[in-house]
Amino acid sequence: MRNAEAQGSRRPVVYLAGPDVFLPDAVAQAERRKAICIRHGLSAVSPFDIPGSPPADATLPEWRRIFLANEAHIRQSDAVIANLTPFRGPSADPGTVYEVGLARGLGRFVFGYSATTLGFTNRSHAVWGPTRRDADGIWRDRDGLSVEDFDLFDNLMVVGGLSVPLVADEVPAPDRWTDLGVFERCVAAAARVLGA
Amino acid sequence: MRNAEAQGSRRPVVYLAGPDVFLPDAVAQAERRKAICIRHGLSAVSPFDIPGSPPADATLPEWRRIFLANEAHIRQSDAVIANLTPFRGPSADPGTVYEVGLARGLGRFVFGYSATTLGFTNRSHAVWGPTRRDADGIWRDRDGLSVEDFDLFDNLMVVGGLSVPLVADEVPAPDRWTDLGVFERCVAAAARVLGA
Repeated sequence: MRNAEAQGSRRPVVYLAGPDVFLPDAVAQAERRKAICIRHGLSAVSPFDIPGSPPADATLPEWRRIFLANEAHIRQSDAVIANLTPFRGPSADPGTVYEVGLARGLGRFVFGYSATTLGFTNRSHAVWGPTRRDADGIWRDRDGLSVEDFDLFDNLMVVGGLSVPLVADEVPAPDRWTDLGVFERCVAAAARVLGA
Repeated sequence: MRNAEAQGSRRPVVYLAGPDVFLPDAVAQAERRKAICIRHGLSAVSPFDIPGSPPADATLPEWRRIFLANEAHIRQSDAVIANLTPFRGPSADPGTVYEVGLARGLGRFVFGYSATTLGFTNRSHAVWGPTRRDADGIWRDRDGLSVEDFDLFDNLMVVGGLSVPLVADEVPAPDRWTDLGVFERCVAAAARVLGA
């Protein structure tokens, strides 16, 4: 609780990571999530907010400005709340996974949620097509590379980076990117840990 | 060059991250890569090595021991050399992406290579099936989520985390996980930056 402790009455600050930034109404969706955080005693920032520092450098390409802003947000937050719902494959969005790793390296809390409960091994099979279980008992994909089989929800590095267990629920596909129920349960867990 | 500077004559230490740990002969493949690093003046550790500390806790589940060992390796290294070849989808392996983010959060150097040169936008289209370009000029996937279109090789967070530009080459599919040419070019670039 860097900010909260240093500045007394300030609410813990959480950064909202996730591929929901790719939704057509992403800014409005982020505002809905921020409102939930406030109800739970947390301040929230999204990738659409402008970080206090460093000042944006207009000479840089757009992608680099976004990258630097997101990193700055995480450095200035107490925790990341990450949408780890599988994204275009068996795993979470790689941008979000990067941010989970970054937060862990910076010593920040990381909380994760997913709108599906299907495990990583099953998702790898479902999404990646023909896999086989060899005589040695190991699942292998069509390139012959083994599939992790630890009964986890994603690659073990992603799972290990979380400060508390994933909050997951099975949300029907049409609502998977906009449902806020599982998100709010994750926020409530984060608020308890952060002492909000 | 944490270790190198602190300990005088010690070679810079690099951690070899990548989904090649899932190859059937992964330990032998890692040894081939380590030998290349030594030729370029670098020491290398792989996820199959046992870190000096912390001692493994046999009471923990296997996946957690692997997670802690990999994190310990990165904390004790000067840099990560990451195999960012697309893995089971348009993006790099999520475990590797986590490690790139972690290294960046810890202030380590990160070097990346890929055995394909196809960009992220094209790969998203190729792997993820029907996408459409809407009237606003934005590519969207079948869930309606936009596809990044910055002419980069992966999600912009992954690209931004690299200390120098990605080293990439188009390696034919059968050799994509075992070819060492693009890896060696990346090691040479890392050795220059690390002053090996």
